[in-house]
Amino acid sequence: MKIAQVTPLYEAVPPKLYGGTERVVAHLTDALVDLGHDVTLFASADAQTRARLVPVRDQAIRLDPAPLKSDLAAHMVMLSEVLARAEDFDVIHFHTDMVQFPMFERYADRTLTTLHGRLDMKDIDGVYELWPQFGLVSISDDQRRPLPFANWKATVHHGMPSDLYAFSPKSSGYLAFLGRISPEKRPDRAIKIATALNMPLKIAAKVDAADKAYWETSIKPMVDGNPLIEFVGEIGDHQKSAFLGGAEALLFPIDWPEPFGLVMIEAMACGTPVISFKCGSTPEVIEDGETGFLVDTLEQAIAAAGRAHLLDREAIRTRFELRFSATAMARRYLDVYADLLAKRPFAETPLDDVVTPLRPYEDKSFAIGA
Amino acid sequence: MKIAQVTPLYEAVPPKLYGGTERVVAHLTDALVDLGHDVTLFASADAQTRARLVPVRDQAIRLDPAPLKSDLAAHMVMLSEVLARAEDFDVIHFHTDMVQFPMFERYADRTLTTLHGRLDMKDIDGVYELWPQFGLVSISDDQRRPLPFANWKATVHHGMPSDLYAFSPKSSGYLAFLGRISPEKRPDRAIKIATALNMPLKIAAKVDAADKAYWETSIKPMVDGNPLIEFVGEIGDHQKSAFLGGAEALLFPIDWPEPFGLVMIEAMACGTPVISFKCGSTPEVIEDGETGFLVDTLEQAIAAAGRAHLLDREAIRTRFELRFSATAMARRYLDVYADLLAKRPFAETPLDDVVTPLRPYEDKSFAIGA
Repeated sequence: MKIAQVTPLYEAVPPKLYGGTERVVAHLTDALVDLGHDVTLFASADAQTRARLVPVRDQAIRLDPAPLKSDLAAHMVMLSEVLARAEDFDVIHFHTDMVQFPMFERYADRTLTTLHGRLDMKDIDGVYELWPQFGLVSISDDQRRPLPFANWKATVHHGMPSDLYAFSPKSSGYLAFLGRISPEKRPDRAIKIATALNMPLKIAAKVDAADKAYWETSIKPMVDGNPLIEFVGEIGDHQKSAFLGGAEALLFPIDWPEPFGLVMIEAMACGTPVISFKCGSTPEVIEDGETGFLVDTLEQAIAAAGRAHLLDREAIRTRFELRFSATAMARRYLDVYADLLAKRPFAETPLDDVVTPLRPYEDKSFAIGA
Repeated sequence: MKIAQVTPLYEAVPPKLYGGTERVVAHLTDALVDLGHDVTLFASADAQTRARLVPVRDQAIRLDPAPLKSDLAAHMVMLSEVLARAEDFDVIHFHTDMVQFPMFERYADRTLTTLHGRLDMKDIDGVYELWPQFGLVSISDDQRRPLPFANWKATVHHGMPSDLYAFSPKSSGYLAFLGRISPEKRPDRAIKIATALNMPLKIAAKVDAADKAYWETSIKPMVDGNPLIEFVGEIGDHQKSAFLGGAEALLFPIDWPEPFGLVMIEAMACGTPVISFKCGSTPEVIEDGETGFLVDTLEQAIAAAGRAHLLDREAIRTRFELRFSATAMARRYLDVYADLLAKRPFAETPLDDVVTPLRPYEDKSFAIGA
C-alpha cells in the first residue's frame, strides 16, 4: 500500500527528548515499512526513518534556536507539499489534529487523522462538526468521550518496538515513578504508596518550568525527609529499560483523563506490572490481575503494589508483544487503511496492488534459460 | 460598500487591557460605519462595535478562564462562518495573518489581509510564496522588508479615534515612557536621556513575566537610586490622555524593528512630540522637526529631548488628525477596497451600488400625488 505519514513538526521523528506523538509516528512508520509497505514520511529533516523522507523543514520546531518562528506557517508549508503529491498515495495519515482539514477536503476519503491529545477542550467540537468527512482514529476509547459525534473510524492503541526495551525476568525490589512532576500525575500518591509499604521508590521525572512551584512546595518536602524516596531526575531513552525493568511495579497514579500513557506499555515491555488508578485510558491498557492492577483508592493502590510481585512478568511481556508492539499497532492501522480503500467509491489503485496474488507473478523476460 | 472585518480572537474588540491588533480593528470598523458603509464584524461576543456583529465565540480567548482551549479551532470555526457568508460582501478584510488562506482560495480576489506583526520570522515566507493570490496590506513600509516579494497592495498606517485623546496645549514639564519594560523597548535609554537633562521622567509600563529578570537586574536599580525617575506601573486607557498630554515629550527609544508603534500616534493626539530612534516604522510616523525628532544616538536623543518644548503642539495634533486619525485610516482602506473591486474581472455588485448616480433615483411608485 502507498502510505503517507504526516507528523507534527514540533519534535524530531523520533524526538530527541520528550514528545509522545512524534515517537509514535516514528515507530508506526518503521513498522509499516517492515511489513512491506511503501511509506513516505513528511517531517523535519532531522527525522530518522526507514521510510522515504520528504523533509519539509530543516529541523523540528521546539529545539530550533531561531528566535522567531511560526508553527502554523511551518505546518501549512508541509501540508502544501503533501497536497501536491496527494495523488501518489492510497492513504494519507495525518497526526496533525485539524490544521489539514481545509486543504484536504477534496481528498478527505483517502485520509485518516489520528488525534493524539485530550479532546475535552473548548472550541474543538465546532471543527469536528464542520469537517465531518474526515475519518478519525482515537488512541483510546476513553479519549473519544468529549466528542462522541465525531467521525470515528477506529481506536488504535499505541505500540512500541519490541526490541527497544529488554525483558527483565526479575525485579530489584523497588517501586518506580516515571514522568513529569505535575499535579495531575500525582507523584504525591506514589510517595504515599511506597511509604505505607516501607518500600523504596525511585522517581525519574523532569520538572517543567510550569511545575516548579508544585515541586518546591508539595513534592520536594515529601522527598527530602524520606529515606525511602530517591529522586533520580530526568532519564533518557537508553536508561528506561534498566529503570523500568528493575522495578517491582510501575506506579501510575494519575488524576486526569490521559488519552494514552506510553509509560504503561514501556513498563510492560520490560515485564514490569503497572499499578494504575482507573482514569482515562488506563482500564483499556492494564488487564487487572494480569499485567497490573487497576485501583480506585490509595488503600487499594497500596494493597496492589504489595501484591505486584505475584504477577507473572513473562506473561506481561507476552501481552505487551501481542497488544502493544509497534507491529501490532501497524497491523491495526493497516486494517483501517484497508477499510478506507474498500469504501472509496472508485478506487484508483488497481486491484493487483492491493491484493497479494496467490501465485507470484512470473516475469518471463528475466527467466534464466528461457 | 459591504465590508466584512475579521479579527483575531485573542482579545476583545477593542481589548479590555492590551492588544494592538484588536484595538485597530475596533477603530477601523467604527470609522467605516461612520463613513456610511455596511460593515459586518466577525469577532467574539464581547466586542463593542457600531457595525453588525457576528459573534463567533462567547468571549475573547486570552482572558477566557476555560482551562483548555484551542486557538486554531476557534479561528477555523470563525472562518467557516465568514465563508458561509462570503457572497454577501464586496470585500472581506482579514486581520488574522495566514490561517484563512486555504479556506478562501476561491474568494481570494475579494479579500484583503492586513499583517499586524513582524515578518522577520522563520517559516512564514513559504506561506506567502504558496498563496500569492491574497492581497496584503502592511502597517508600515518598513514592515515589508523581510518579505519584499509578497503581494503587497498598500501600506496603511494605523489610526486612532480623534476624540479618544484630549489635546493638551501645554506640558507639565516631564518626559514620558509608555510601554513594556523589555530590552527591545530600551527604558534604560529613556532613563539616561532624562538623567542627562536633569528632567523628571515618568515611566508607565507593565512588566511581563518574561521580562521580570530584566526589570530586576537592569532597570529597577536605575530607577531606585534616581529621584528624577518615577515608575507609575501600568496605566489604563482612561489614564493615557493625562499621562501623555502632560509630557513635554514621549521618549520612544526602541531597538527593534517595530512594525508600528501605536503609542507614537497616541502622544501626537495629545499634542506631545515624540523622540524616536530611527528604527522600524518610526521614520514613517514621526516627521523630524515637526511632530518630534528622529535620532540615531543617545547624544542626539538628549539634545532632541531638550529641544522638544520648541515644537508646536497644536501643529502636532493637526498632523495626527490628518495622518493618523481612525477616519484617515478608514479612508485609506476604502481606497484599497475600491482598487480590489475595480480589478475584479467580473464584479458581482451592480454598478449602481458602487457608483453614486448623479441624480438620485426617483421612485415614482411612492411619489405623493402621482
